[in-house]
Amino acid sequence: MLDLQSIREAIQPINAQVVEEARQRQLQLTKPAGSLGRLEEIALQLAGITGQVKPPRLQKAVVVMAADHGVTAEGVSAYPAEVTPQMVLNFLAGGAAINALSKQAQAEVVVVDIGVASELSDQRLISRKIRWGTANMARGAAMTHEEALQAIAVGYEIVTRLAESGTNVVATGEMGIGNTTAASALTAALLGRDVAEVTGRGTGINDQQLAQKIRIIEQALATNQPDRSDPLDVLAKVGGLEIAGLVGVILGAAERKMAVVIDGFISGAAALVAVTYCPTSRDYLFAGHISVERGHRLIVEALALEPLLDLHLRLGEGTGAVLAFHLLDAALATHNGMSTFGEAGVSEKEG
Amino acid sequence: MLDLQSIREAIQPINAQVVEEARQRQLQLTKPAGSLGRLEEIALQLAGITGQVKPPRLQKAVVVMAADHGVTAEGVSAYPAEVTPQMVLNFLAGGAAINALSKQAQAEVVVVDIGVASELSDQRLISRKIRWGTANMARGAAMTHEEALQAIAVGYEIVTRLAESGTNVVATGEMGIGNTTAASALTAALLGRDVAEVTGRGTGINDQQLAQKIRIIEQALATNQPDRSDPLDVLAKVGGLEIAGLVGVILGAAERKMAVVIDGFISGAAALVAVTYCPTSRDYLFAGHISVERGHRLIVEALALEPLLDLHLRLGEGTGAVLAFHLLDAALATHNGMSTFGEAGVSEKEG
Repeated sequence: MLDLQSIREAIQPINAQVVEEARQRQLQLTKPAGSLGRLEEIALQLAGITGQVKPPRLQKAVVVMAADHGVTAEGVSAYPAEVTPQMVLNFLAGGAAINALSKQAQAEVVVVDIGVASELSDQRLISRKIRWGTANMARGAAMTHEEALQAIAVGYEIVTRLAESGTNVVATGEMGIGNTTAASALTAALLGRDVAEVTGRGTGINDQQLAQKIRIIEQALATNQPDRSDPLDVLAKVGGLEIAGLVGVILGAAERKMAVVIDGFISGAAALVAVTYCPTSRDYLFAGHISVERGHRLIVEALALEPLLDLHLRLGEGTGAVLAFHLLDAALATHNGMSTFGEAGVSEKEG
Repeated sequence: MLDLQSIREAIQPINAQVVEEARQRQLQLTKPAGSLGRLEEIALQLAGITGQVKPPRLQKAVVVMAADHGVTAEGVSAYPAEVTPQMVLNFLAGGAAINALSKQAQAEVVVVDIGVASELSDQRLISRKIRWGTANMARGAAMTHEEALQAIAVGYEIVTRLAESGTNVVATGEMGIGNTTAASALTAALLGRDVAEVTGRGTGINDQQLAQKIRIIEQALATNQPDRSDPLDVLAKVGGLEIAGLVGVILGAAERKMAVVIDGFISGAAALVAVTYCPTSRDYLFAGHISVERGHRLIVEALALEPLLDLHLRLGEGTGAVLAFHLLDAALATHNGMSTFGEAGVSEKEG
């Protein structure tokens, strides 16, 4: 069994001294101070994460965790649950949005079956099925505490393996029909918000279905009574297997001093669990984008993250995070590649 | 002399039929309808511009127009005017932010001396100096009507040559100490705004310098009395040579059915002149980002453009536009590269 407390204790703050040295370097580059805005902030954070004033070239991967949700029996999604395995096959065949964007970003796509409710066998798939989908949270706990820990261990193992093969930045991705319902339940419980404040239309449900989704989440919280002070309890009772897997990815990456780019609402819920459990892990995170799912804004505010992109995305899979890889690359391209005033013979600011 | 009226008449609206066909394609891709947000809108606009439902791969360039401004004699900038030629040499040597970002984006950098106030000779530089910087607009017209037209012709010629060598998307870039002063004057005149509403800190002036900058722009407008109904009159009297050059780039690109990604405030002022002169040209434009220069927001609102990025940039050179190339590439990567529901065997939405 994963020793999560030891991992939490092993996660170190980013290197403040190196951040400061990187800040000094930025001031010498041939541009007005601060004129590259958020690209400068990204470069500084990457310097602190990697411990290098000029951070190394990014080697990128996106981990796409797929799982099913028993709560789909309550009619909370616009799509049938069979779409989860169908989309996993689409990821493996290279036909989904995350494939097209990862190819463009030169990021490896790692697809994990951590709890799809059907038989999937394909040698390109990482098969780590904990169970065939979660139980219906409207009637009881989505999973046991032990299953949640097993799922966290899967994410931890995968990101550790990626680190060993040279990956230094990872995007969080997921697929699971019904998983905005789990993310809303987690967010409501961990932030102490009304369910209606954190629940959106997911893949595109109508007003009547949205009212039903809110009712079901309220029922799930009433039935399970998750303990807000214990993020692992909340995760097990109203979370999802893919969300737990991403908690493991985030904690493992922070332990290994890798940058993590968080995607949208589902990934954000995983980040909320991880940072609530281990606040230091937050410094390794970038918010790739702000989703149109309303709960996502509350999560990024709670985590004090500033999303890099706002493109009205609501797809998941890791798409918004992989799109943001480009901005991390751009931050390093300028930070590492530009000439200084001295090198270029350019006059500095007057007065 | 350039026949600008003929060019205006030759600019055609984008192809609405192809936009509709591209919209139908988007509905068949393996994702919930609309879930790729602004990437879908970009793909549709590129389809309309190119006239192809699946637009071709982007071949990218940024045109960086450099020129000086006589108004710098009034102390409106934080940097000395000698920085203009120094930065041109930095562009040619590959040490500036625009070089680092263009390399990453696989975009050609075209550097043009359209009016730098010093001798520059380098075979990598396109030398089309109209005059050694503009005159001081606080005392009279920045340039004659004829000089403004000559500068437009330079941009038109360059973008036409790029089109002939296969470039199908161009970013607008510029360098010119003092050019936020010209952009503010243009914006105030063309939008009928108070100077204080459209004037910011440029490369980083203090409160006292900002008050001086506003006073000087007010003086320039009072002295020159530009005719708001005639964008070319405004351009000549209170604009800049690099801004006029970019007007030519935009009009030439629209005539050739090329996409144009507008950078920040200076480029935005050029777009405002171009679109006021030829409203149809607007449909070929993307706003790469929203700058922290306050006048820029008023320009993108007036042009009804939605900036793609908000990274607190205020550098110019074309940096924000070249950063946004990635999103155009991403839009096409998904639009052209994803599988349809039928191809992937994925179930569509219920009900």
